[in-house]
Order: sequence, then structure tokens, then C-alpha cells
Amino acid sequence: MTREPLRPVLYDDARDVVRVLDQKRLPVDEVWLELSTAEQVAAAIKDLTVRGAPAIGVAAAYGIAVEARRGADVARLRAAAELLVHARPTAVNLAWAVRRMGRRIGLGAEVILAEAHAIRDEDEAACRRIGALGAPLIPPRAHVLTHCNAGALATAGYGTALGVVRAAVEAGNPISVFADETRPFLQGARLTAWELHRDGIPVTILTDGMAGWLMQRGEIACVVVGADRIAANGDVANKIGTYALAVLARHHHLPFYVAAPWSTVDLGTPAGDAIPIEERGTEEVVTLAGQRIAPVGVPARYPAFDVTPAALVSAIITERGVLRAPYDASLRTLAAE
Amino acid sequence: MTREPLRPVLYDDARDVVRVLDQKRLPVDEVWLELSTAEQVAAAIKDLTVRGAPAIGVAAAYGIAVEARRGADVARLRAAAELLVHARPTAVNLAWAVRRMGRRIGLGAEVILAEAHAIRDEDEAACRRIGALGAPLIPPRAHVLTHCNAGALATAGYGTALGVVRAAVEAGNPISVFADETRPFLQGARLTAWELHRDGIPVTILTDGMAGWLMQRGEIACVVVGADRIAANGDVANKIGTYALAVLARHHHLPFYVAAPWSTVDLGTPAGDAIPIEERGTEEVVTLAGQRIAPVGVPARYPAFDVTPAALVSAIITERGVLRAPYDASLRTLAAE
Repeated sequence: MTREPLRPVLYDDARDVVRVLDQKRLPVDEVWLELSTAEQVAAAIKDLTVRGAPAIGVAAAYGIAVEARRGADVARLRAAAELLVHARPTAVNLAWAVRRMGRRIGLGAEVILAEAHAIRDEDEAACRRIGALGAPLIPPRAHVLTHCNAGALATAGYGTALGVVRAAVEAGNPISVFADETRPFLQGARLTAWELHRDGIPVTILTDGMAGWLMQRGEIACVVVGADRIAANGDVANKIGTYALAVLARHHHLPFYVAAPWSTVDLGTPAGDAIPIEERGTEEVVTLAGQRIAPVGVPARYPAFDVTPAALVSAIITERGVLRAPYDASLRTLAAE
Repeated sequence: MTREPLRPVLYDDARDVVRVLDQKRLPVDEVWLELSTAEQVAAAIKDLTVRGAPAIGVAAAYGIAVEARRGADVARLRAAAELLVHARPTAVNLAWAVRRMGRRIGLGAEVILAEAHAIRDEDEAACRRIGALGAPLIPPRAHVLTHCNAGALATAGYGTALGVVRAAVEAGNPISVFADETRPFLQGARLTAWELHRDGIPVTILTDGMAGWLMQRGEIACVVVGADRIAANGDVANKIGTYALAVLARHHHLPFYVAAPWSTVDLGTPAGDAIPIEERGTEEVVTLAGQRIAPVGVPARYPAFDVTPAALVSAIITERGVLRAPYDASLRTLAAE
């Protein structure tokens, strides 16, 4: 794989713009947008132009940095932070990154930009470490199931769940990936398929209802997903549909792994029932690519995330180590390190 | 509900055409097609213009009748039967109906048409009886989850799973339905939502990954689905995604009911692993409404059905009675009646 590593959120220091790969237009078009205000960054987070828990943290950090570099005063920077932290509710990385940036407000634009760069660099490094720690968990020649996109596109680069996949491949394990298409937004069919195909890693698309059947037939060796928030007891919020996979994995005695940077761990949330679950507008459910697929007048649901109880999680792979149950204890131990 | 009952496959005796409601164009357009050859009927079955195990049995019967009424000789009628029986592999109702029609070939066009009408009439009557037998299983004010479309559109009329829903509503139980959208072909979002909304029965669309989460939150009381083939041991082939729901229902201690006419029971198939599972072209997975949703060059899977082991089925509701485990014994008993 000699291709340039994929990094979906960048900062152009010379021109002071946040550059984001428009994930709404992938895989058909590869378009980079240039954002120059916190409002534009918040809008890009809200409308899923940039998505994935670590990636929206990085984008928010740069959203504050771009304001600082363009001369915003402290009051405006605080307002930008407030706007960005509320762009989406479930992924804790967003609040984590904005809180971290908040501690630099008032110290000057260079300090603020340096902190944003640090958040980006640390996230990519964390992903590579997650990959190195997770790769040995993947059986030889495994068919690995993943859901949504927890890849380079969802992070500063390299990916969490797909970081584990990439590291396994780089270590010489010829694995292949089944990617749930992940309705409604199709992050699996559009994004996971695109970035793995780009890197030459075999990937096959499934609709979300197929995984159980392939497990029954012995075609899946393990499940690896990302996370948007991990509670203190190990409960995991992730893209809607993840919980069903965890139940199916347990029924078939398959390992169910969660890969996430430590910035996704929220020890301030005791358990999954306290994680706010974003309800999105149902247009994405009843229309597809601008075409209506459901009768007018029929309502739909769109909880964007679900919560997988810690009891269904075989291990949580972070850059600090691979955690096993009981997660309340193992998370506390690594938090103290 | 004063609307005309929905019957998706009809025969026009005066003009000798098979009239089918084009289910590829619902819910956007309500278009009736007129078919006058067995080849046209077989093509309509293959391309899902008409779908649903009992409905394709009825359509195939009329496909033979229309040939008879238009003067086909015995050799051509046998060829028509051969063509129709191979249009799709999984639903046993197709083979059952064609076999039944085959016994009338040579007895004259009127006898043949009468047999096709009998198949249609008996199927609708079976659905109404399934509804009457199944309705008492639905708890008061239940939120009922269904998958794909096992409704009037999938049968001669009234429906199997949705027949149970309709009968519960008609008996005064104000239930509501969650309809899995059922990728790839979206039978739930397009067809189940359409026919229930048409009849004034509350229905809400879910993407296929949401059901597990709603079960975890206590929002679903039971699952009712149709079937394409029921093996002698009670294993049930149905639309891909059904098996995952059965596992999820078991995990949440919810009843999982299968509603199907006796013509779906195949005592000649000992168990689910002997049921042929249709693999369809993956265009329906990687494109939607003519729009490409996945990267070019990435493969997809499309098993159209899966098999739910009898052990996960709470009851099988047929017009002959409500069967409980052990299904090998209860199916044998009702077969003898």
C-alpha cells in the first residue's frame, strides 16, 4: 500500500482554512471543502460532512483554531466552543476536544493552533497503537464484520476498528472485511467500502439484515466496531445496529470487539442509560439519494446510536491497552495510568 | 375500513389477461400490468413485480390458465408450467401451485381456470383464517414488529403476518406496527407501510438495524413474520434478516410468530439446511433507485432469504391451527387432517 494515508480533517496553516473531505458525497465524488469559521465547522459536523467520533473532535478543535488565527477575541472563541460542543450530542470526543481547546483560549492563536494539531496528531497515533494492540486478536485469514465506518474517515487517520484491520493486514494476516451497509446514512457501503478498497483490503458489502445469517453459516470470525462513547461500566454507544450485532455475536459465540481511543471513554457517565442518544430527522430513512422510498404520511424512527451493554463486549481496544471485563475495574485502572 | 380489499393478482375472465399490481413501482405509483403469456408471468415473478410466496403461487396458476384460455395445447401448457416452477427457487408455494395446476392440464381451459381461481380464493380464505387464529396471540395495544411484506400484497389478499395484524385491529385491539424497511428491495418501507397506511393501521418505518435497540428499550411486544418455506422440522425460510430478528426476540424473551398458509409447509424438506436459498444479483444492494451507493469494484452479497431454526419460533400460525413445538410432531398431525 503505497498510497498517501487518508486524513479526512486537515488544517492549512498557510491559508488558515480547515480542509474536510465531504463524506456526504463519497464514494461518488471526492470533494474537499474549505471552512473558515466555527459556524461552518459546526454545520459540517451536524450535517455529517465530517462524522465519526474522533474526527468530529479534531474538526471542532480546528474550528476553534481557525477562529483564533483569524483574529477572534476570547469572547468569540468561547462562543465558538459553545457552538461546536453542541453540534452533536452522543460522541463524547467532541466535548472532550472542545474542553481541551477551552483551556488554551486566551493564550494566543499559536498556542491554540498547536493544541488542535496535537489533538489531531495524538488521535492518529492512538489509532496506530490501537491497531497494533488489536491486530493479534484477529484470527488468521479471518472474515471480520464491521458496522458503520470506524476507519480513517472517522478519525484523524488510520481508524479504530479499521485500524485494527489495517494493522492485521500490515502484519501479514490476509483477512477480509464484511461491511454492513449501515442504513440510513450508508456509512458502510459508502465509506468503509471506499477506504478499504482504496487501500487494497478485500471488502464485501452486506445489507444490515444479512450479518446474522452469515454468522449462522460460519462465514464470520469476529466483529470489530468503533464507539462514540464508552461509559464507566463499559457500556458502549455506537451507530444504530451495533447492539443487534453484539447480540448476534453472543448467540453464535463470536468475539465482539470495540476499538476506540481513550478520548471516547467517559468516566463521568456511569452507565449506558445515561448516554444521550441523538434522534435525527427521518428524511434519511424515508428518502434515499433524493428519491422517496416510503409512502408520504408514514412516520419513521431514526435513533442514530444504540447502547451495547458491557456484558456483550469481549474486549475494548484502546491505545492504553486491551481491556477485559469487569470493565469498571479495568477502565479505572487504565484511567489512573 | 371501507376501502376495497387489496388483491394484487387478479384474472380478467372477459379479456383473458392476468392483472398484477406492479410492486416495483409502489409506493410512488400504483400501476396495474396486464400479462397474457406464461413467459410474461414468469418474468414478473423473477423481477419482483409480483412477490410474496403465496402471491407468486397464485400468479403462476394464472400464468398457466391464461395460456389454456388462449388456446395453448398440452405440450405448451407443460412447458409453461416448467418455466413458471423455476422462476424462483425458495418459496415452495410456487411449486405447490404449479404442481396442483399440472393435474388439470388436459382437462380443458375452463377446468384449468377454475383451478387457478380456487387457488386464489383458498389463499385469501386461508389468510383470513390465519388472522382469526393469530389475532388472540397479540397483546392488547401491542407494538408489533414485522419484516419484509407478508401482507395482502404478498398473498391473494389480506395477508399472513399482516392478516394477523388486520384481524387484531378488526377485533378492536388498537395495535400498531413497526415495519423493518427490509433492504435491499425495501418491501417493508415501500409495501408494508403502503398497505397498512392505506387501511388506516398505524405503521412506523425502521431501518433493519433498529429493531434490536427498540426491543432492548421495551418498545416491541412481539414479532410476526411470514414464510417462504417451512420444513418438516419447523425450520422457516423467510426474507433475509428474519433470522436476526428471531435471535433478537429470543434474547429479549419476546414471542416470535410465523404466519403462513399450509401451502408454505414442505414436509418433503426435512430441515432448513435442505431449503434452496436464492442468491440474487447484487445490483439491488449497491444501487438504489438507479443511484450508485457503493464504490465501483466492491462486491456485495445478496442471499434473498435466511433460515430460522424451529427452536427460535414461538408458534407457526396456519389456517389449520396454531402449531407449537415440537414442530415435527405438530406439523405431521395437522398434515394428516
